[in-house]
Amino acid sequence: MTTEGKQPGSDSRSAKRLLLGEPLPTDKLDGQLLPKKLALPIFASDALSSVAYAPQELLMILMLGGLAFLSFAPWVAACVVVLLVVVVASYRQLIKAYPSGGGDYEVAHKNLGEKAGLVVASALLVDYVLTVAVSVASGVDNIISALPDLNPWRIELAVGFVLLLMAVNLRGVRESSKAFAVPTYLFIGSVFVMIVVGLLRTAFGDAPVASSAAFTVEGEDLSRAAFILLLLRAFSSGCSALTGVEAVSNGVPAFRRPKVRNAQSTLVLMGGTAIVLFAGLTAVALVSGVHYAENACSLDGFANCETAPQPSLMAQVAAAVFGQGSILFFIIQAATACVLLLAANTAFNGFPLLGAVLARDAYAPKSLNTRGDRLVFSNGMILLGLAACAILVIYQASLTQLIQLYIIGVFVSFTLGQTGMVRHWVRMLRAGEGDRGEVWRGLVINSGGALLTAVVLIVVTVTKFTHGAWLVFVLMPVLYTLMLGVNRYYRDVDREIEVDDTTTFGSAGDHAIVMIGKMQKPALKALDYALAARHESIAAVHVSTDEEATRLLENQWKQQDIRVPLVILESPYRDFAVPIVTYIKRYRELHGPTVVTVYLPQYIVGHWWESLLHNRRAKRVRNQLMLVHGVAIALVPWLLDSSELIYGRRSRPLPGQERRGEPIRAVTRTPLPPPGDRHAHR
Amino acid sequence: MTTEGKQPGSDSRSAKRLLLGEPLPTDKLDGQLLPKKLALPIFASDALSSVAYAPQELLMILMLGGLAFLSFAPWVAACVVVLLVVVVASYRQLIKAYPSGGGDYEVAHKNLGEKAGLVVASALLVDYVLTVAVSVASGVDNIISALPDLNPWRIELAVGFVLLLMAVNLRGVRESSKAFAVPTYLFIGSVFVMIVVGLLRTAFGDAPVASSAAFTVEGEDLSRAAFILLLLRAFSSGCSALTGVEAVSNGVPAFRRPKVRNAQSTLVLMGGTAIVLFAGLTAVALVSGVHYAENACSLDGFANCETAPQPSLMAQVAAAVFGQGSILFFIIQAATACVLLLAANTAFNGFPLLGAVLARDAYAPKSLNTRGDRLVFSNGMILLGLAACAILVIYQASLTQLIQLYIIGVFVSFTLGQTGMVRHWVRMLRAGEGDRGEVWRGLVINSGGALLTAVVLIVVTVTKFTHGAWLVFVLMPVLYTLMLGVNRYYRDVDREIEVDDTTTFGSAGDHAIVMIGKMQKPALKALDYALAARHESIAAVHVSTDEEATRLLENQWKQQDIRVPLVILESPYRDFAVPIVTYIKRYRELHGPTVVTVYLPQYIVGHWWESLLHNRRAKRVRNQLMLVHGVAIALVPWLLDSSELIYGRRSRPLPGQERRGEPIRAVTRTPLPPPGDRHAHR
Repeated sequence: MTTEGKQPGSDSRSAKRLLLGEPLPTDKLDGQLLPKKLALPIFASDALSSVAYAPQELLMILMLGGLAFLSFAPWVAACVVVLLVVVVASYRQLIKAYPSGGGDYEVAHKNLGEKAGLVVASALLVDYVLTVAVSVASGVDNIISALPDLNPWRIELAVGFVLLLMAVNLRGVRESSKAFAVPTYLFIGSVFVMIVVGLLRTAFGDAPVASSAAFTVEGEDLSRAAFILLLLRAFSSGCSALTGVEAVSNGVPAFRRPKVRNAQSTLVLMGGTAIVLFAGLTAVALVSGVHYAENACSLDGFANCETAPQPSLMAQVAAAVFGQGSILFFIIQAATACVLLLAANTAFNGFPLLGAVLARDAYAPKSLNTRGDRLVFSNGMILLGLAACAILVIYQASLTQLIQLYIIGVFVSFTLGQTGMVRHWVRMLRAGEGDRGEVWRGLVINSGGALLTAVVLIVVTVTKFTHGAWLVFVLMPVLYTLMLGVNRYYRDVDREIEVDDTTTFGSAGDHAIVMIGKMQKPALKALDYALAARHESIAAVHVSTDEEATRLLENQWKQQDIRVPLVILESPYRDFAVPIVTYIKRYRELHGPTVVTVYLPQYIVGHWWESLLHNRRAKRVRNQLMLVHGVAIALVPWLLDSSELIYGRRSRPLPGQERRGEPIRAVTRTPLPPPGDRHAHR
Repeated sequence: MTTEGKQPGSDSRSAKRLLLGEPLPTDKLDGQLLPKKLALPIFASDALSSVAYAPQELLMILMLGGLAFLSFAPWVAACVVVLLVVVVASYRQLIKAYPSGGGDYEVAHKNLGEKAGLVVASALLVDYVLTVAVSVASGVDNIISALPDLNPWRIELAVGFVLLLMAVNLRGVRESSKAFAVPTYLFIGSVFVMIVVGLLRTAFGDAPVASSAAFTVEGEDLSRAAFILLLLRAFSSGCSALTGVEAVSNGVPAFRRPKVRNAQSTLVLMGGTAIVLFAGLTAVALVSGVHYAENACSLDGFANCETAPQPSLMAQVAAAVFGQGSILFFIIQAATACVLLLAANTAFNGFPLLGAVLARDAYAPKSLNTRGDRLVFSNGMILLGLAACAILVIYQASLTQLIQLYIIGVFVSFTLGQTGMVRHWVRMLRAGEGDRGEVWRGLVINSGGALLTAVVLIVVTVTKFTHGAWLVFVLMPVLYTLMLGVNRYYRDVDREIEVDDTTTFGSAGDHAIVMIGKMQKPALKALDYALAARHESIAAVHVSTDEEATRLLENQWKQQDIRVPLVILESPYRDFAVPIVTYIKRYRELHGPTVVTVYLPQYIVGHWWESLLHNRRAKRVRNQLMLVHGVAIALVPWLLDSSELIYGRRSRPLPGQERRGEPIRAVTRTPLPPPGDRHAHR
């Protein structure tokens, strides 16, 4: 007999409930939709939080050329701002044209074909994982900037936060957004105040001074080419401020109606906020003289570079403006850390949605398109969480290393998404659809977007490839190939099981085999059920591997006066399936083709360890018999209660599961009816 | 739908065949029995191989007291020899009285009760694992003594050998014994020659001189108590020469007929050989002045104690007698290493046999009593192999540490086994059974044996407990408790499923539910089989989680003109089991108690990865429905071929598995018969 654990009613279920909350019905789906004021923190935290690291990475790269290079910072930052404006404008068009949440994937798929769509999908999947990793790493950086004692637990903290986010998200969208709205608004507010105060103090002649303002670093003597490359690299790193803009376009279905307008205005609001914070923070950092180096030890004046990390740019600015250790300093750091963790949360909204879309289109396992008890795509969330943890462990939660892998994917999807939009508008123009002015406007905006993002993609690739981004160019093709393979597999399966003209009913014959090991209740229950099903003919079959046991069974069979014929099959190789297969073959030779139902008693055990104590034989037999043509397997369950009697644990019964333990007597009417009668009606 | 891998015909099967050989029928069991000349190497290698380490450990302990203590060595060795004679004599009696292979376990169980039996069993189980670990560790020691370059791979070598032994044993008893007979005889012969040559050279005034003869070690100033304790410790370590004597008594069923006489003479032959080799080797070692210390660095004169291990006693004697690097030296080392590995092999014969006996008596999982394809108890072998590997890794394959855990278990089972024998003879005396003289002889021999082994057990425990043997005293109670728990579990299950007077047939009613997800062949095949089974009433049931899909199905249902009623069940929580459970409940409210058969289509996939691409939903549904009272699950398999079509792999079909891929048409006679007719015969 096979054994299976009880799924429902087990204790693990109540633990799950405690963690995730009660299950929600499907019609609650609308109730889970997001109003704008909650959608902003959810979908915008990624783009906004980039402010916490984009200026830092921008300035850090520039400082590789020496302090003098910092004078180029405003220009580089301005380029980033311009790019941000263009991209936000482009995505406003995209949301309107494709509001189903497929985002760049859908646009590229529909307008540029399957392959472009899959390139975007693989780019986005990689980038979602990196969004989690980078944001959490940066968040932990900011926490450590405020509480340096935590430095030894950097990786553990990062992994812990990812798992926490995963758990929160598994509970469902709205609850997470509620919990997340406060810190996002706090971050926007407090950083804005910090920028204003910093700039006002400067205006009034009391400019804030960063702790690192006195640190110097030796600039290398750069050739003209290296000079330009350095500027481009700084720009590339600054572009990390753009990550997350696409999140809104992927999340449109989660918005409250009118979805498109709400999503669009959220996008614009987010873009505006991001620009103000990015530009403002860069300005205050420059004004207060933050000198931030990739390797703290290269800073002339930084004392304990070996033991402690350099505080993040955000921490240095906050300390300069409000004073190290002031309450406002800690508020800024806490809000920054929180919003970075929420940025990771964006991916927990986007990745499962994209996964579900891919699963719907049969490019990913169907299980990614299954909503869990709490109406979220649980499997996608778990996948994302585990992948992010792996990346964090591999890269030791180092922001500087992780950021090198980042953005490539974003700009791949930006470029292909915008190109798809251009194709979309051109097609509309040709077909004469839509408002002519609007179409032209869209075409111009998206053409600009496509061109600009393509250029940036090239810049980013060139400047980052050797710094670690090559890995992304390995992962993307792997994902691409996997998705293509999955699609081909599903297509083949669908074709195989498609109902066509040749599909007809008409299997005939109805022979039942009840496998009898010993004269025990589970076997008799199976026999009883087989009798109840009134098969045309029925045989109790015993596979003999031990002569003595067989003889005992034969005697008991006669004693109990069971009038179903007991067929003994010899099994010299102690195999249980082959003799039965042979029996079925012979039966068919005599009686013609017939459907054969094999009844197998099956123990249901209450604890995982119990299954160690029961032979796996029946499971093997079942799997083997299922390969035989024209055979159905009827599992007759027998719930083993003894463990619960001994160990005093009783699991919750499923609704409808009235009583257990005495299945044969439960519907008893007559004692041992002559089964021969049933046989007679053949 | 659930997915299950195909067990037979898969590629893993052919790999298994290559490794293990073709399966053997049960009636070949007698052909697998051992003639004496093969039984000796198999069952005696353990006891004989102890010679390779027992003298070494004995001398090593004595040397803790300084070189002067070596003069006690002959006396201590003599004690060991006497003990060996007594134990062999005792076991001759035991084999005759209990030839079924249960050995000490059976004797203690039958004569002293269940608990004594389980104590013996747990002691033996622990000691089998340690036999493997100690023998392999010592074997690797001897290999490294000859080839010191292998020292860094000590643990890897040890684990590798254990896995090799496991694989060889999984192929079956006789083949392993053939492979193993040669080195055992080579070992006996070559060591015997070495002893004779060594002693003859001494007699003729040309005594061999060991390389370590010049090394000295400082003796501690010992109190009288410490002096005696040291002698006892040396004796305890020397007693490791006795391990393996019981192997023959546990292996009687594997002997060729007449089993008892063959086993007895093998035992005596083994005992004699062990005594000659042990005494001879100790003598030559003393004559040639081998100075062996636990820590090579404590030896005054041993140069590279930090980097290289001291050669084993066997290697030092061989080098002294035949010359370091001579061919005979390498033959001795190779034979020693081989016979030690074969000693480990003894455990691979004994452990699974004991496991099977325990499983037969319901103290261990039944799977330990299942003979594999090659007629051996495969599961026990795998368990032993893995446990030994774990111990070797934990103790870094260090012989000196492992030997501290050893012997305790052996003497526990010796003592209880002999005590049981005493009880056996006393009972026979009282009942007046058997030949009076023989019974009295047995009583005297076994009383002596019991007394002596009990004393030794106390000595061994006292001298070894703090040196690591405490672990054995933790493991044994754990095993003991586990076995008692397993027994109680099986007893409870057996009582629960026992057929009694109240067991009656008579389940009535015959309703079939066919779960329909989409209009696809697997679902229709399930419906077809349900129709073929001619249930009293039948309903196609669709659990609706997506309105659109449900509407499509309803239309197709009408289009295809399937006259089985399609019941739509709403599932707001996207659960599949609960709506069906509710449906069954309502059905029974209307029609009275009835057996319900739920038909579930089930994908059978060819590769493990395919199951990732199919929802696990049906498996969950199946497990949930099996908890419902009065429900049987009929699995209708659908073999997915597409993967093989794409990837060009086709697995071997099971006999009887004629054709695949078109199950519905296969037995077609009439296209789409009106199922309404079937309904009518209610």
